Amino acid sequence: MNTKRVGNQTVVFQNPPFIISAYSIVGPKEGQGPLAQSFDQILQDTYAGEKSWEKTEQKMIETAIRQTIVKAQFTNQDIHYMLAGDLLNQMISANFTARQLALPFIGVYGACSTMALTTALGGMLIDGGFANKVVCGASSHHDTAERQYRFPTEQGIQRPLWGQWTVTGAGAVLLSDAGNGPKVTSATLGKVVDLGETDSNNMGAAMAPAVADTLISHFNDLNRQPDYYDLILSGDLGSVGFELLLQLLDKSGIKIGNNFGDCGKMIYSLEQDTHAGGSGCGCSAVVLAGDLLKRLNNGSLRKILLVGSGSLHSPVSSFQGESIPGIGHAITIEV
Amino acid sequence: MNTKRVGNQTVVFQNPPFIISAYSIVGPKEGQGPLAQSFDQILQDTYAGEKSWEKTEQKMIETAIRQTIVKAQFTNQDIHYMLAGDLLNQMISANFTARQLALPFIGVYGACSTMALTTALGGMLIDGGFANKVVCGASSHHDTAERQYRFPTEQGIQRPLWGQWTVTGAGAVLLSDAGNGPKVTSATLGKVVDLGETDSNNMGAAMAPAVADTLISHFNDLNRQPDYYDLILSGDLGSVGFELLLQLLDKSGIKIGNNFGDCGKMIYSLEQDTHAGGSGCGCSAVVLAGDLLKRLNNGSLRKILLVGSGSLHSPVSSFQGESIPGIGHAITIEV
Repeated sequence: MNTKRVGNQTVVFQNPPFIISAYSIVGPKEGQGPLAQSFDQILQDTYAGEKSWEKTEQKMIETAIRQTIVKAQFTNQDIHYMLAGDLLNQMISANFTARQLALPFIGVYGACSTMALTTALGGMLIDGGFANKVVCGASSHHDTAERQYRFPTEQGIQRPLWGQWTVTGAGAVLLSDAGNGPKVTSATLGKVVDLGETDSNNMGAAMAPAVADTLISHFNDLNRQPDYYDLILSGDLGSVGFELLLQLLDKSGIKIGNNFGDCGKMIYSLEQDTHAGGSGCGCSAVVLAGDLLKRLNNGSLRKILLVGSGSLHSPVSSFQGESIPGIGHAITIEV
Repeated sequence: MNTKRVGNQTVVFQNPPFIISAYSIVGPKEGQGPLAQSFDQILQDTYAGEKSWEKTEQKMIETAIRQTIVKAQFTNQDIHYMLAGDLLNQMISANFTARQLALPFIGVYGACSTMALTTALGGMLIDGGFANKVVCGASSHHDTAERQYRFPTEQGIQRPLWGQWTVTGAGAVLLSDAGNGPKVTSATLGKVVDLGETDSNNMGAAMAPAVADTLISHFNDLNRQPDYYDLILSGDLGSVGFELLLQLLDKSGIKIGNNFGDCGKMIYSLEQDTHAGGSGCGCSAVVLAGDLLKRLNNGSLRKILLVGSGSLHSPVSSFQGESIPGIGHAITIEV
């Protein structure tokens, strides 16, 4: 038993699952950003024909998961588990998608780290011999998140410059024990780290210590240097959190090269004026399912490390005076 | 690969994990019920010294997980993963517990089926070789759930006779690849089934079809009859949902014996006037961690099948006209 554990916190897959297909769907703003060409589908408006933004978000993740399965030329009957989650209370986007698809469903919550967490767990289910094929997904919608966590968007509240913009988007990947494609090779699941940040507009600062903690564990566990990877990405620290991450890593003696980046910094241009960048479960989900997998599949990337970053608070916990617990879940994908 | 799958939806563990310890903590009402003797700790009041019920719920699950680890004479450093979830928005009870314990954390959401889902997944992580020891837990609190899902309890709204009473309680189990104790031998994770129930006071009716679906899959996959088990329990269908379950199973040709029951029907006496019985993540969690494991450990039960039942709606989805998606996740525990 247990030969798959390396160091304190990392597991290395013995039969690494293949990512045989992926699908990304985004809103209009994301479709005007620098990664526009990498997405499979761009919505014309934030409703896409639905009566509420919640229903739009549900439709997005349903579309992403359905199309991921179709792209790989499988049917729902071939899929052993669906793992998914989202930011909405009780994860209704994922739950109602599971209803539509009638797949055995594992609900997973890691806030904005959900895509990395579902992919890590999905990899374990395949490598552990419990499934041949699993589909993993996550979603967020700017307008559903704003009104749940902050203010109704119609109110036009001015956002602070360190605030991030919740991505409207959903991404999914299909993991398989056989086939072609980049492989999920290891996972380092994170601990909650909370250094006391209480400003729910400054999630980057709240999450950076947890991402640093997971990265340091990952490098220590595998006895690797950052230059092993072509690209090391945090999920959605944005510009403020990413700066803090680099400072924390530097203090810990980690050698920071040009291969460090952040999905939240990649998805919008500075001209789009989102302030500190993108956030939300959809952020790292669509960057993974879009840009990263396209580059892994065309050979321009060969080894990446993605650390999904999550703020595990709720409006209730913030109102009751709690600070924001952060978490970082890391996966490695290699060609 | 994949030798652990049996039939369409079931996995049978090759090296079944042992449940080496468990801890249950409940509120005063549960402490006056028929299972009082089986619980490790009974709170004197619903606050237990905290300033809000949310903080009380968090403290309960933290206590359950800490004491489960202590009981087994381990320390946090021995535990590879904590899997937990609860009903509160963004699962703050589990998240803040993960912050306090600093364990690698996997957030899992299955509404009231969460305890069965965390135990099933925890079993897979151990049997798959990804962990030696994992702690699995779930919690709910009557007053946090009422004000989030329905009305503030102070308002004194009259509850319908088919309404269930959310259990104030938290339970945890420690799964290990080695040791002594009952073993988790198989798991049948469920699909979402939704026959259109829209009354969020009637969750038993909403969940019964999903529990029936999972039970039928379980019996078919393993080619077993119900009489294989000493006890077959649904999580928290309560008296209304349990009656519907028996009707659905009967229609499907399943032979129903005296070994069928429901945790939500067991936890309160009729004199306690909770109407249709108990519900909430804490319901099946404390019945498992309390009554069931005590009976498995003293030999009066040898083979049980527990189907956690979850209503995967939110107040938002109900307000937007959606019906209630139900799910059932089954685990088997054998001595």
